[in-house]
Order: sequence, then structure tokens, then C-alpha cells
Amino acid sequence: MSISHPHIFWLFGLSGAGKSTLAEHLIKHLRCKGHPVLALDGDDLRAGLCKGLGFSDEDRSENLRRAAEAAHLGLRSGLYVVASFITPLESHRRLVAGILNPNISFIHISAPLEICRARDVKGLYAGAKSGKVSQMTGVSSGFEDPSHADLTLTTAQQSIENCGDQLAGFAHRLPPR
Amino acid sequence: MSISHPHIFWLFGLSGAGKSTLAEHLIKHLRCKGHPVLALDGDDLRAGLCKGLGFSDEDRSENLRRAAEAAHLGLRSGLYVVASFITPLESHRRLVAGILNPNISFIHISAPLEICRARDVKGLYAGAKSGKVSQMTGVSSGFEDPSHADLTLTTAQQSIENCGDQLAGFAHRLPPR
Repeated sequence: MSISHPHIFWLFGLSGAGKSTLAEHLIKHLRCKGHPVLALDGDDLRAGLCKGLGFSDEDRSENLRRAAEAAHLGLRSGLYVVASFITPLESHRRLVAGILNPNISFIHISAPLEICRARDVKGLYAGAKSGKVSQMTGVSSGFEDPSHADLTLTTAQQSIENCGDQLAGFAHRLPPR
Repeated sequence: MSISHPHIFWLFGLSGAGKSTLAEHLIKHLRCKGHPVLALDGDDLRAGLCKGLGFSDEDRSENLRRAAEAAHLGLRSGLYVVASFITPLESHRRLVAGILNPNISFIHISAPLEICRARDVKGLYAGAKSGKVSQMTGVSSGFEDPSHADLTLTTAQQSIENCGDQLAGFAHRLPPR
């Protein structure tokens, strides 16, 4: 890998599947290797760049469009980009790919809904159950299993360390462009 | 300067004043010193992240808010950010400062309107005259001289090389945070 071949790692999957943890693992790994990284995270963007957008289909699409355009700015600046967003629908993934192909790898962070619900790191599933959180992906809003992913990491069946090592290995095997 | 002290250089001024040229100079300089840089430019953002926004006061504010939030993402990732945007009004500069203080320096790239109009690198002033370009800053839309700038570079009185050297020198003299 080289600074002259910037690339985008797009981690997607249900809330609680382990996207942010694995994104941090990859970011740390890339930085240790001397690669500058732009980190993009759903929660951060919702608090700033995408403030005011909700969770309707239209707003989710605009949220992901802006995320992809921010990633594109990083790419243009020769940076690696590690992005973690639920990206629930196939149409969202096509939207993102349309902006970032061929410089993007889609990494599906996969765990069954019941496992994510049990983890409930942010309390969102409990919030969805009590009615405080609406349009919760996997509960009151859809998540489509991907027809394609460049890498799938199953965090319910393997340790996070093991998944992190697979992700780092994947990054190293990227062919030079 | 160190990667652990990321900073934002916000170049502002009229179209044709020399923002993009001086931004490129600074980006090249920072990269030569081994600092990763996220480059943000008005034209790039208009074509992607801010597509669909126009030039009304409200849309200009939203354009600059998104630019500042994108810069903030770079800052959070430990990057230097070089941003070049007309940023015509004091209220726009306050908006940007509100998001990025205390990690931002405002660099006014200053040249008289008649000089910018004569340069007309992008043909926008001619377009404004013929009516093809509306809400052109300095012609049919206001530019407020800044009450404050951390550095002012007067590109009509000095060579671009001289201004570029001053900008690089300014970056080097930034106190560590």
C-alpha cells in the first residue's frame, strides 16, 4: 500500500455489529504503517456535516451521499479513508459505489439481529422497543443483506481481534492501482 | 509543526485573488514536510458535497457550514486542512470560526476587485457582466472586508511566490498547542 494509491474501506452493517470497533482497529493499523487516514463515522457526521437530516429514506440517502462525497475529498487528497455507516439498503450501497468506484472496498460487518440487539452498545434497540427511537434499522426500518461484499466479517462467530486481523490482512492484499 | 497538532488554514477572498494557487503552494509545502493534508476547495465542494446548493445567502451559509464540518472531520483525524472558499461575509467567517476555533487561521487573500476582474481566470466576471452568472461576489453579491485576519496576503502588490513563502513561514511559526 502506498500514499499514491489511496483507498476507501466502507464498513457497513447493523448497529451493534462491530463497525466502529473494527474501523478503529483498521485506522490504528494503517496509521502504524505510516498511512494518513481520514476517519468517517455515522455518529460524527450526524452531529455535524449531516446535522438536521433525519432517518427517512430520503434523508438516509442524503446522509450517505454526503458521507461518500466527504470520502471522495479524502481520496482526492491522497488519503486512506475508513468509513463506518449502517448503509442499510442495496440502493444506498449503489449510491456510494457510484461516487467512489473503483477506489472502494465494501466490508460487511455481519452479526445476527438478535446478537446486535443483545449487545445494544448505544441503547438504541431498547429505545426502539420502548418507542423512543423510531426508524431503527433492523427493527422498524429495513436492512437488506448485501448481494455483494468485498469482505464479510462475522463478529458473532469470531473474536473482534480475529476479525481485525482479517481486515488488516485484506488491506495489505489490495492490488496496487 | 506535528501531526499531533492538526490545524486548519482557511484562505478567503474574492474570486481571482489567488486563493487556489496559494492553497496549492501551501499543500505542496506541507506534504514535502511530511504532513498529510486534506484539501478543500470551493469548486470541488460545489460539484459534490454541496451539489444542489445555490448562491443565496442561506445556501452560501450552508455551503460554508458543510465545508467547515468537512474540515472538522479532517482535524479529528489529525490532518492539516487547507481550505479555500470566498467566504464573503463576516457572518460566514463567524460561522466557520464557531465550528473550528481554536484550530483555525484565517488567511485573507486580498486583491482589489478591478485586478480580480481583469484576471478573471474562470471567466466568471465576464459572465456576471453579460448576465450569465448571477450573484457574483464583488459584482452582484457583497464581499465584506474582514475586521480580522491572522494573515493578509496582497497578491496585487507582491508576486505569488513571495506570498507563498509568507504563507509557508506563517505555518511554521504556528505555536504548538
